[in-house]
Amino acid sequence: MILTVTLNTALDITYRVRSLRPHATHRVSEVTERPGGKGVNVARVLAALGHEVTVTGFAGGGTGRIVQDRLTATPGVVDALVPIGGATRRTIAVVDERTGDTTQLNEPGPAIAPPEWSALQEAYEDLLASASAVALCGSLPPGVPVGAYAGLIRTARAAGVPVLLDTSGEPLRRGVAARPDIVKPNSDELAELTGSHEPLRATHAARRRGAHAVVASLGPEGLLAATPEGTWRATPPGRVHGNPTGAGDSATAGLLAALVERRPWPERLTRAVALATATVHAPVAGEFDRRTYEELLGRVAVTGEASAA
Amino acid sequence: MILTVTLNTALDITYRVRSLRPHATHRVSEVTERPGGKGVNVARVLAALGHEVTVTGFAGGGTGRIVQDRLTATPGVVDALVPIGGATRRTIAVVDERTGDTTQLNEPGPAIAPPEWSALQEAYEDLLASASAVALCGSLPPGVPVGAYAGLIRTARAAGVPVLLDTSGEPLRRGVAARPDIVKPNSDELAELTGSHEPLRATHAARRRGAHAVVASLGPEGLLAATPEGTWRATPPGRVHGNPTGAGDSATAGLLAALVERRPWPERLTRAVALATATVHAPVAGEFDRRTYEELLGRVAVTGEASAA
Repeated sequence: MILTVTLNTALDITYRVRSLRPHATHRVSEVTERPGGKGVNVARVLAALGHEVTVTGFAGGGTGRIVQDRLTATPGVVDALVPIGGATRRTIAVVDERTGDTTQLNEPGPAIAPPEWSALQEAYEDLLASASAVALCGSLPPGVPVGAYAGLIRTARAAGVPVLLDTSGEPLRRGVAARPDIVKPNSDELAELTGSHEPLRATHAARRRGAHAVVASLGPEGLLAATPEGTWRATPPGRVHGNPTGAGDSATAGLLAALVERRPWPERLTRAVALATATVHAPVAGEFDRRTYEELLGRVAVTGEASAA
Repeated sequence: MILTVTLNTALDITYRVRSLRPHATHRVSEVTERPGGKGVNVARVLAALGHEVTVTGFAGGGTGRIVQDRLTATPGVVDALVPIGGATRRTIAVVDERTGDTTQLNEPGPAIAPPEWSALQEAYEDLLASASAVALCGSLPPGVPVGAYAGLIRTARAAGVPVLLDTSGEPLRRGVAARPDIVKPNSDELAELTGSHEPLRATHAARRRGAHAVVASLGPEGLLAATPEGTWRATPPGRVHGNPTGAGDSATAGLLAALVERRPWPERLTRAVALATATVHAPVAGEFDRRTYEELLGRVAVTGEASAA
């Protein structure tokens, strides 16, 4: 199975309202809720692609119970979240039906106690024994040390499990130094890490800092990958309209799926870009349209070259 | 014990944000949550006054579990909510720290199935056997017949339990016709019921429609009561500043507390106005400041006169 780690899990709630006006009272016309946090989103896409996925991270309180009930009900997903005393945070996306714009309210989330963090590390090590790959995704909750991902990367490498890191700031900086197989920053995160705003230069700089492969997300312009096998750019066909929420997590799922199927880098990038694009196209944030995905697989342009062997 | 009925229970969540801006992403700096719905609020105030209270209504889903866990943890409150298949609705109050203004988002809430409504009526009849008074509070959820309160009033009257009704619209109109002991509309609800915007005339008109006593809430100007024992007006001392959320529910609690203690009407109104005013004063919406309440008891002005015996 593929393991995804989400230390800052969430219950993602979406409200549709006629028109959001500050200081007014609104009747919500439609409520949707689902488990969230980047690694959970990656797991949902992997499961939809037919992969067996296990989700770990933290869950607690009434919101944590809802998250776990929903994960358990998702075919292909195994819930291995570690219980905590605090309550899992909520995020609320308020969609204005008139403009289509979204207003986001993110709860801070509970602090993790030292024994809870120890319990997660133990559960993680146990789960790695049956994992074909692991993704470490998202921000760190309060109470978890800033070097957390670096430690989890070393454990994965010691167990011989390929590890992908998708985070930002200091946890990314420390994680890269622990030599993960893949890091997947966006342009801003990459610039913050390397000091360079030039994507090609920055991806190579991130490799020199320790990452074996760097896949930079360039938003609507696709992906740029610097890897031991070569450097490639993968671009979606034409301009994409829609909701980019979750597109990055879909790209991560595409990279992982192709990785465990031992596909070469150009094919990994094609899948990642097709999935991300199909997610932007989908009517529901974070879901992807399967027909769009399959149709896009033949239309993603990959340019670049393999390194000399 | 005093019984309160809340057919449209809620999990009331309050978010504090630096400044609410549509289409932006906000970090919530503080989250508070508690069981809500008008009858639940009335029960909390009654329990704080030292009364034993039982809460019935509907609860379901993960949010319903949070509501029930919280009610069970409230001293003096007994949870007798009836389980339903749907999930209890949430309400979200977003407080802008810069302006102090509140933006409200109210979920629609689950539809009640006919067997669930039957189960509630049976539970209600059982609970009435040990009730000294009952309050029927708030709107009706989808699936509950519009004459629901009228039926619950007749059951209470048949059991010899004094019954207070606090609702609006057609459920109020039908409820009043079932001859409740007290109805507690605000000015708008009273005008809608009677067609008169003149409070004194409207309270008397509401009595003629069937209510034994009518206590009209006039907002910052206090209460106006038309009862079989006489007509009174109760006014808080001076202008009140603060958050009026929950003030009406505190007034209901004051009326009920004094009713079961067999106090005369002027004292019932004094308690209701003092509690409502102490609620407006309190820093947290819906709570009341006990010292303010006790100090106000001696300062509420009650004018009017008893009917000729």
